Amino acid sequence: MSILVVGSVAFDSVKTPFGERERILGGAATYFSVAASFFTRVRVVAVVGDDFGPAEEAVFREREIDITDLERVPGRSFHWSGEYGYDLNVARTRVTQLNVFADFKPKLSDGARETPYLFLGNIQPTLQLEVREQVAAKLVAADTMNYWIDNTPDDLRAMLERIDVLVINDAEAREIGKEPNLVRAARRILSMGPSRLVVKRGEYGVVMFSKDSYFATPAYPIEQVFDPTGAGDSFAGGFMGYLTATNAIDEPALRRAIIYGSVMASFNVEEFGCERMRRLTYDEINARFRELRAFSNFEEAEMPPF
Amino acid sequence: MSILVVGSVAFDSVKTPFGERERILGGAATYFSVAASFFTRVRVVAVVGDDFGPAEEAVFREREIDITDLERVPGRSFHWSGEYGYDLNVARTRVTQLNVFADFKPKLSDGARETPYLFLGNIQPTLQLEVREQVAAKLVAADTMNYWIDNTPDDLRAMLERIDVLVINDAEAREIGKEPNLVRAARRILSMGPSRLVVKRGEYGVVMFSKDSYFATPAYPIEQVFDPTGAGDSFAGGFMGYLTATNAIDEPALRRAIIYGSVMASFNVEEFGCERMRRLTYDEINARFRELRAFSNFEEAEMPPF
Repeated sequence: MSILVVGSVAFDSVKTPFGERERILGGAATYFSVAASFFTRVRVVAVVGDDFGPAEEAVFREREIDITDLERVPGRSFHWSGEYGYDLNVARTRVTQLNVFADFKPKLSDGARETPYLFLGNIQPTLQLEVREQVAAKLVAADTMNYWIDNTPDDLRAMLERIDVLVINDAEAREIGKEPNLVRAARRILSMGPSRLVVKRGEYGVVMFSKDSYFATPAYPIEQVFDPTGAGDSFAGGFMGYLTATNAIDEPALRRAIIYGSVMASFNVEEFGCERMRRLTYDEINARFRELRAFSNFEEAEMPPF
Repeated sequence: MSILVVGSVAFDSVKTPFGERERILGGAATYFSVAASFFTRVRVVAVVGDDFGPAEEAVFREREIDITDLERVPGRSFHWSGEYGYDLNVARTRVTQLNVFADFKPKLSDGARETPYLFLGNIQPTLQLEVREQVAAKLVAADTMNYWIDNTPDDLRAMLERIDVLVINDAEAREIGKEPNLVRAARRILSMGPSRLVVKRGEYGVVMFSKDSYFATPAYPIEQVFDPTGAGDSFAGGFMGYLTATNAIDEPALRRAIIYGSVMASFNVEEFGCERMRRLTYDEINARFRELRAFSNFEEAEMPPF
């Protein structure tokens, strides 16, 4: 099995209370691909400029990620620069330069069109829909952000009608559902198309809703969150990568996929960019899966009236 | 087994987006006692004024809560008035009148001094310590708040040295631990005295730390949080009530106690004041315990390299 991801490949400049990095490889499709590559074959659809060189390409190659559909055009790649304070939950964006990404029109090879699993990273809903309609996928998941919720609500709704799983953060869920209560916001979103809603809550973990099920898991406790950039995308990569690998989309598989997603995100935030994921081992991933199980496990009980 | 709680019994005026109530029975010791009374015998140490009448007394009597140590003095009872907006996470306090609570000096009967489990509700740390030293308890837990953390840090530290479990919310944990990262804040707090730290995170659930263990559980998903007042205290009541009933304080018992605490809090927020808890049944409590287990359960997995 293999998975296709469309999204941004970027150069990020990131400052956190613990250090700073200039123009390191980032972007949703990058974090997603590297995380998913531990589970399954990954193909990336994205656009980069001339500044994308051998060092950046190596990140994909060493993880055996298929970059046939990575388009290279003259100009500079997407660039984001941001800063985090001590609470690390909110990034202050200093610079966003779309560059070659401004005219991105995803072009899919024949191989890409036949990929059975598809993840639509956070790009314009119209482009997400365009890609979605070209791929005969068994399972389609998507991310989005407040910008599209506010500015292109109709396009977003059209996209939602054509996907199976929406993977967003809790502020986005409350905004799309137009409802401060997450349970009710989820119910509304599930009436818009997706059969599953996965809500990322940062240090508070992840919840998944369907019309008749609910699953909640805490985040892996991290003592030093070094750089939260890419946490959501590496979560999505682990989540979708595991589903693709097992080729099962029932409740138990989806729950384990959420745990693997949480594990990948927990590693990713320990260092800048993809640095930690690049030297991750299967043993480390499985060990943290087991730890998360131990952290959230409790036994049955029946309270007797006294 | 039985538990002793010291804290406030108050009249609350509460406004939420869903309605309003004037001078209903509230206070930490009230919510705690009613919740704990489903599990074990409860004794309350508190002070009330002449406005505490038969209707209020009935709430304790119908739950068979021992009010021998409930002191009645001339004057008015503690009164709090507050308002919640749609997010329901933060109360805006309109009025706090200490009234008879201003001169509260807890007086303990002989029976109270022999209670094996003790919960020190959120009152001045000096009073908490005074009560603690009078009770030959097997397990002592306490709550506190930002006011005491800011204004009486030395008294708070002295109290912390003499308790086993600290039950607070996450902002308080970060403040006492002087550290935005919760895992590290917890480590610091555990070096101050308590062997367990239980952190309430509202809709995000609860985490428990000890020097060598970690447990995290999501909150029970509530579609209509009607009135969050007393959520933390009813959590503590369920938590301590269950521990007292089982008379076990090992990790599995503590984990189940956290689930029972979460269950009690989830019921409590469904209606104003103690209204929902007053007509709660054992079946309802056990059903929600089982649901929480189903919501957070996932199976083992071993990710094979592909």
